[in-house]
Amino acid sequence: MSSNPYYGQEGHGPYETIRIGNLELEEGGHIPDCALAVATHGTLNAAKDNAILVTTWYSGTSKIMEQVYIGKGRALDPAKYFIIVVNQIGNGLSTSPNNSVGAQAGPTFPKVRIGDDVRAQHKLLTEKYGLKSLALVVGGSMGAQQTYEWAVRYPDFVKRAAPIAGTAKNTEHDFVFAETLSEAITSDPGFNGGKYGSPADVAAGLKRHAKLWTVMGWSTDFFREGRHKALGFDSMQAFVDTFMTGYFAPMDPNDLLAMAWKWQRGDVSRNTGGDLASALGRIKAKTYVMPISHDMFFPPSDCEVEQRLIPGSQFRPLKSSCGHLGLFGVDPELLAQLDANLNELLAAPVN
Amino acid sequence: MSSNPYYGQEGHGPYETIRIGNLELEEGGHIPDCALAVATHGTLNAAKDNAILVTTWYSGTSKIMEQVYIGKGRALDPAKYFIIVVNQIGNGLSTSPNNSVGAQAGPTFPKVRIGDDVRAQHKLLTEKYGLKSLALVVGGSMGAQQTYEWAVRYPDFVKRAAPIAGTAKNTEHDFVFAETLSEAITSDPGFNGGKYGSPADVAAGLKRHAKLWTVMGWSTDFFREGRHKALGFDSMQAFVDTFMTGYFAPMDPNDLLAMAWKWQRGDVSRNTGGDLASALGRIKAKTYVMPISHDMFFPPSDCEVEQRLIPGSQFRPLKSSCGHLGLFGVDPELLAQLDANLNELLAAPVN
Repeated sequence: MSSNPYYGQEGHGPYETIRIGNLELEEGGHIPDCALAVATHGTLNAAKDNAILVTTWYSGTSKIMEQVYIGKGRALDPAKYFIIVVNQIGNGLSTSPNNSVGAQAGPTFPKVRIGDDVRAQHKLLTEKYGLKSLALVVGGSMGAQQTYEWAVRYPDFVKRAAPIAGTAKNTEHDFVFAETLSEAITSDPGFNGGKYGSPADVAAGLKRHAKLWTVMGWSTDFFREGRHKALGFDSMQAFVDTFMTGYFAPMDPNDLLAMAWKWQRGDVSRNTGGDLASALGRIKAKTYVMPISHDMFFPPSDCEVEQRLIPGSQFRPLKSSCGHLGLFGVDPELLAQLDANLNELLAAPVN
Repeated sequence: MSSNPYYGQEGHGPYETIRIGNLELEEGGHIPDCALAVATHGTLNAAKDNAILVTTWYSGTSKIMEQVYIGKGRALDPAKYFIIVVNQIGNGLSTSPNNSVGAQAGPTFPKVRIGDDVRAQHKLLTEKYGLKSLALVVGGSMGAQQTYEWAVRYPDFVKRAAPIAGTAKNTEHDFVFAETLSEAITSDPGFNGGKYGSPADVAAGLKRHAKLWTVMGWSTDFFREGRHKALGFDSMQAFVDTFMTGYFAPMDPNDLLAMAWKWQRGDVSRNTGGDLASALGRIKAKTYVMPISHDMFFPPSDCEVEQRLIPGSQFRPLKSSCGHLGLFGVDPELLAQLDANLNELLAAPVN
């Protein structure tokens, strides 16, 4: 399994690859020399209290996080904050099936959990940057799973938390959705148990996977309003074939499967013997819970149930017919709501 | 392709197979001797004005329509009405890929549209029963597609219409969802271009298809509330493996594909050169539009847009976290709302 040029600096940089050494894994085994791909923006102040961690979602890298969240005049402004975007393990940039060699290459890559990512990130932030706290952890979807895990696992470290379009404990419904995504890939004969030559061998499975994302990622209102056409596609067919299929086609199937497996099992209550209320009750971060109104698999109803268990938290749904993939940043009104909430959260006093 | 015992009288009867002769098809070609499987309940009165037509949904037959809608004390009471349930073409009981022979057997079955079903049903009702009107047409999902088609195509014939959890013109979003269902089946190597030996050869594809129904057919609230467990399943896994997979496993894959193709293309505006407002504006039936609150692919928002185009119609959403598959009748509160609406509709004066 050779490295895939899709994940290189040209498409997703600049990022720095930082080795954090051995990472023990919750499922057993370890990654001997774990590499985290990191992009930073802005400067750490002398007090080291202006650091923000941005986590990444399924299939996303530090590049789209920069495009969606970060910039002059945005809530995450590099002029004010030291913003650290850490690519999740398995996303193709950090240690992943695609870029591993030997006993952990491709389909033999070990099972990695959200908790493993968060411990790896904690090691990075404390050892590489000498941080003792984060002003904010923010992320969408699987990035929200990491955000919740951070706030539960390191309650004194995380001063503010902004989980967007994600849950602290994955639902049974969402588990099955992610399973349909994985099986769209693994059912392709070209997948060959993970021993394909290149993503092109799995093109049919990746296209079915893209169609499932078309159904669950946006919303029927998005399409009824013709928002896919406003993005420059003549028809639904063009949107599916060009945008959605084209987005996923170059990605490494084993990487996607590693992330989907992790997503299915996101659950902060693993820290408290299965007691979700107890886990969320630990959170000291000032927390704004931000689902997206039309999200079909991390819907507001699931997020609100959890928000009520977080002390002092606020429920701040973002209204957008884009649904879950409003995360892509295609709806300026969603971004405006997001920034207003983040600005307010960042201005809020914390302990 | 031999006939499949699943569709026999034992599991789905009693039903009568009525031959209506040649049926010309909108896509071209014809079914030479079209058979409609029909179940009736109650007695036609002398004035022939107490007939109700019940249409069927994807994968459903006249048997579940009886169980869900019809009975003493229900709105559809055989003591008052002559209730005719007509199985849709392609559902395994009426003329279908599975029970056709020769040039139209299995994968060579011609493309059938909602409009073909409705013309076939009109022929049956006028020629076999001598009907000049229907007191009500009622159906859910693809049954709603047929209900709308009836009301648009035969506006004087249909006195009342109750489309449940379905649309008059299928949405682009729903089109892609149905495509994912079809491709779950056709991507199974055992499907073999439709030339499988039995549904068991396509078990893996049918199981993926069942998982997609699990995700889109119910709702995340349904599972969060543990309603699947209340139905007698210990876990999500048992619900998927036993109930959902078991439900679809014996069905004929080519039959399911024929219905899915038809579902994708349901569109009353074919009667009016593509003008949906004009088509729905034709309706003279007193119409109650009844989406289900948590439906993920025929959601209330899509149904309400259409309802507003129907003269004198009412929007009567049914509240149930079961979502679309509330149609199965597992939520007594949904059935109570349904009956209250149907009783009111049946009591309403009409032209």
